[in-house]
Amino acid sequence: MRQVVVSAPGVVKLFGEHAVVYGKPAIAMAINKRLRVAALPRSDGHVKIIARDLKAMGLIINVAGNGEIAIETEYGMAMNAISYVRTAIEVAKKYLREPRGVELDISSDMPVGAGLGTSAAVAVASIKAYASAFGYHLTNDEVASLAHEVEKTVQGAASPMDSTVSALGGIHIITLQDRSRLSMGPLPLVVGYVDRESTTKDLVNNVKELRARYPALIGSIMDAIGEAVLLARNALESNDLATVAELMNINQGLLESLGVSTGRINSLIYAARRAGALGAKLSGAGGGGIVIALAPEAVKEVKIAMEIAGGHSFPVEKDDEGARVDEG
Amino acid sequence: MRQVVVSAPGVVKLFGEHAVVYGKPAIAMAINKRLRVAALPRSDGHVKIIARDLKAMGLIINVAGNGEIAIETEYGMAMNAISYVRTAIEVAKKYLREPRGVELDISSDMPVGAGLGTSAAVAVASIKAYASAFGYHLTNDEVASLAHEVEKTVQGAASPMDSTVSALGGIHIITLQDRSRLSMGPLPLVVGYVDRESTTKDLVNNVKELRARYPALIGSIMDAIGEAVLLARNALESNDLATVAELMNINQGLLESLGVSTGRINSLIYAARRAGALGAKLSGAGGGGIVIALAPEAVKEVKIAMEIAGGHSFPVEKDDEGARVDEG
Repeated sequence: MRQVVVSAPGVVKLFGEHAVVYGKPAIAMAINKRLRVAALPRSDGHVKIIARDLKAMGLIINVAGNGEIAIETEYGMAMNAISYVRTAIEVAKKYLREPRGVELDISSDMPVGAGLGTSAAVAVASIKAYASAFGYHLTNDEVASLAHEVEKTVQGAASPMDSTVSALGGIHIITLQDRSRLSMGPLPLVVGYVDRESTTKDLVNNVKELRARYPALIGSIMDAIGEAVLLARNALESNDLATVAELMNINQGLLESLGVSTGRINSLIYAARRAGALGAKLSGAGGGGIVIALAPEAVKEVKIAMEIAGGHSFPVEKDDEGARVDEG
Repeated sequence: MRQVVVSAPGVVKLFGEHAVVYGKPAIAMAINKRLRVAALPRSDGHVKIIARDLKAMGLIINVAGNGEIAIETEYGMAMNAISYVRTAIEVAKKYLREPRGVELDISSDMPVGAGLGTSAAVAVASIKAYASAFGYHLTNDEVASLAHEVEKTVQGAASPMDSTVSALGGIHIITLQDRSRLSMGPLPLVVGYVDRESTTKDLVNNVKELRARYPALIGSIMDAIGEAVLLARNALESNDLATVAELMNINQGLLESLGVSTGRINSLIYAARRAGALGAKLSGAGGGGIVIALAPEAVKEVKIAMEIAGGHSFPVEKDDEGARVDEG
């Protein structure tokens, strides 16, 4: 019975978005922005969640067919994160057969709900924090599996990508069946963020419908994305950043062809390229959200360019460490 | 021995750019903007070319590896058109065994050298005008072959796409071996134009190098473009403009993945889409040049949006007539 603080890194998707739904591999990286969960056991059996310091970002604006506009506020994003925490505690309690109460205080270096894998990170950190607070040691592999279970419970379906990468750190290539950690040097990226205009669910459905209408065409595009991912894996493991960047640009065009890019994403991407980025692409489901740029020689310039183009922007690095106990 | 005026339509590429180089089909359309050649036989055997009214457009700026900047001026574009006229007259003289002199006066509804097939149109119109001035009747099929010969002579290598479509009018699907005219209703497009930053030759070479580096990946992208072209052919022949537009957007993403799009092209494309275009893509080799938007319900709005985004813009329609004698 002690207070512990556990942190888990955010995640950026590097390659393979959307195609991963159709069995292609994808690559994602843990970043040096962390979400922290402080856990203090309670004697009364209650679970209390404090999220004073949870910066939420990203308005989802949904315009329905009849013109009705629904806005999911930043408050909604934070509430959404809370549902991952609650489910994580349920899952951890059951796995550990430890039904005691806990007070959790959550804070984050990065915006929540923006597409940086914070749902997974909050699940990962909550599970590990709960376990550590009661003296249990869970391996990060165990935490990854449990966090994936949390995501599936909350969302209905979920790729294990974010939970794996947040729990284990580093860069991973992941298929529906398998995962493997890539060994490579630093990978400095600049992240840009614009408000999302569509939800992940809608974007995944749109691609599904596109594929149903044009099976051969979209099949070839998925094949191309799969090939880009495998080439990117080799380039990453050879630290060949010029090739990584070129493949980012190719992958971006393929995402554009799936209809998941937007004008604002494109503005950030071309601003980044003009400012010296070797490669830039959307990261995640698209429809707004995260843009990543690879600009080893021009981090500052690219950050400024993306901000002038209307995005929030910050540099990130690969974090080889996954979830960890920081205190306690 | 009489003055004749012959006109030939400009051409927009609808689908399949770049992939056509690797054996995939492509689709192009004759537009209701014409290039005119007035031909008057001369008794002295000389060929005189007047091009007072030839609006040239499009600066090509080439930045070499060593930072050297070469600018090909609008004057150069007009001069380039003139070399097609001269070669066309040589080819026509030889084919007709008619070595007499002629005065040619060239004018155009559309900018020359912008990517609207004006090189082909000027060859087509010059050949047909020369023949008509001396009382010969050439079929438009004959003119198409001769004009293709002109393009090959001037450029070294050339697709028969522009010469075929300008000579015959309408919409054609063309492969390296074959061509076929599509039968369909009107197809109202809005054309946008931005200055070119790269030459066609450089863009074709860049794609060739990309394909040499990533044969399977670029092969899949070429396959996807080929599939988009065949789907587009069916959609065009069914007058299913919504599908045509969707395939334009997919084809644009695939061109983006080949690295031939630019930030300015993207600005025009997204401006057009926001203004109500169902589909928009670059048309031709890319690196700037022509953007086409399909916006049956919002022609004016899309034209204005593309101008605000920094392009020149005008609406065009399909022209089912190819080269024709307008006077004489």
